[in-house]
Amino acid sequence: MKSLVSWTGFNAGEGISTMNASELAAKIDHTILKPEASAAEVDKVIAEAITHRFASVCISPPFVAHTSAKLKGSGVKTCTVIGFPNGTHKATIKAIEATSTIKEGAEEIDIVAYLPHLLRLDLDAARGELIEIVRAARATRSDVIIKVIVESAALTSINKGREEETIKLACRAVIESGCDFIKTSTGFHPAGGADERVVRWMDHYGAGAIKVKASGGIRDLRTARLMVAAGADRLGMSAGVSVMNELGGQDSDAGAPGY
Amino acid sequence: MKSLVSWTGFNAGEGISTMNASELAAKIDHTILKPEASAAEVDKVIAEAITHRFASVCISPPFVAHTSAKLKGSGVKTCTVIGFPNGTHKATIKAIEATSTIKEGAEEIDIVAYLPHLLRLDLDAARGELIEIVRAARATRSDVIIKVIVESAALTSINKGREEETIKLACRAVIESGCDFIKTSTGFHPAGGADERVVRWMDHYGAGAIKVKASGGIRDLRTARLMVAAGADRLGMSAGVSVMNELGGQDSDAGAPGY
Repeated sequence: MKSLVSWTGFNAGEGISTMNASELAAKIDHTILKPEASAAEVDKVIAEAITHRFASVCISPPFVAHTSAKLKGSGVKTCTVIGFPNGTHKATIKAIEATSTIKEGAEEIDIVAYLPHLLRLDLDAARGELIEIVRAARATRSDVIIKVIVESAALTSINKGREEETIKLACRAVIESGCDFIKTSTGFHPAGGADERVVRWMDHYGAGAIKVKASGGIRDLRTARLMVAAGADRLGMSAGVSVMNELGGQDSDAGAPGY
Repeated sequence: MKSLVSWTGFNAGEGISTMNASELAAKIDHTILKPEASAAEVDKVIAEAITHRFASVCISPPFVAHTSAKLKGSGVKTCTVIGFPNGTHKATIKAIEATSTIKEGAEEIDIVAYLPHLLRLDLDAARGELIEIVRAARATRSDVIIKVIVESAALTSINKGREEETIKLACRAVIESGCDFIKTSTGFHPAGGADERVVRWMDHYGAGAIKVKASGGIRDLRTARLMVAAGADRLGMSAGVSVMNELGGQDSDAGAPGY
């Protein structure tokens, strides 16, 4: 397939995004999804998200009701994950999990797509799965923000030689099922997390119809900025506070505290 | 806590199990759970399980109906996983997933327990979650075999200093909820898989009321034998065929082909 994204003349860091602290914070889904996360750890993440005015707190389904109650009135959204992290549940189960978590207060849901559909470039199956989940979710709350995790590092490493085609198809499935975001990674797959090239493809093939969430392995300000420069509107990360501190330090050096 | 399991005099390999090929095969859940597993890969695993007469084929929920149809009459069971691999779904969602997969042909289900309950030694919560799932599962099929994955390497590394107490509590929750097996690991947690010490504790505290499935990182015959010697009745592994070949080679050397 001919690449529709021109790389000519792009040097890493050339288009690196400049953002002030509030702009960066508004892009961060402050995330704690490890299976052993305790209530105390989740409470810390909630407090940090309120302090820094992050876009959302992203927690596992068992913490949704508690998080939603704590975030009430803060302007920070409650985000959770569906079929996480492997995506190997039936669509019906993901739809029920989406409905259940939305009823408990989730305003944003990040669904893990079933990877085999995407890997064999089966648009009908990929779109069909998402449509079943989206219908259930939007019937419960029409304005829920829906992100679809496609585990891009797994897709591109397995579909070597068809990387761009695979990401293009994933974008199409996400667009045509009426979701809001395509998201790179769970952060749990051994193939890795977000990479700049994939985020650019997602931004290109999303074509303004969907936004891009980069996640997995974003642990410093430089990487966060690269992802935003590549087209990410959201950043899923657990290192949000240290990245904000990095930016705060830089701004302070320049005489303008970031937050 | 005083250890109830005496280690005195035990040397690694001393109690190593001797098994012939059919005894070993009957303990193996032949497993493919990676999120990107294709239908062709699953079919290969099914064929291998029939050839080697493994205990079961363990696949993700989307493959249950297909696997169950293919295994019909073979004597090999269909096994699937619930809330896999993180266990961070609500109990109700796990119960629905259990019911749904049993209806499609699952004869054995391996449920990932919600780790925070176990980590804070909350027997009521741990048992309560399991009871909700078990009731739904057994109402659908009374003789379904239920295994509970407690991600023992995560439990023991996080609850350092209280390792034995934590495994003991996990055993109690599994016993008192009426499940059949306690299972060490998903194979997906960075803390690691089965270890011999934990399998011995599970065997001890299971006290004959439940059996032990060791899983995660069992890739050779020596490790498989160590786990059986330590008390494992089942072995969850993807390397079943190469382990059988190892045993076949040994038996052949002795003039007695293993299978």
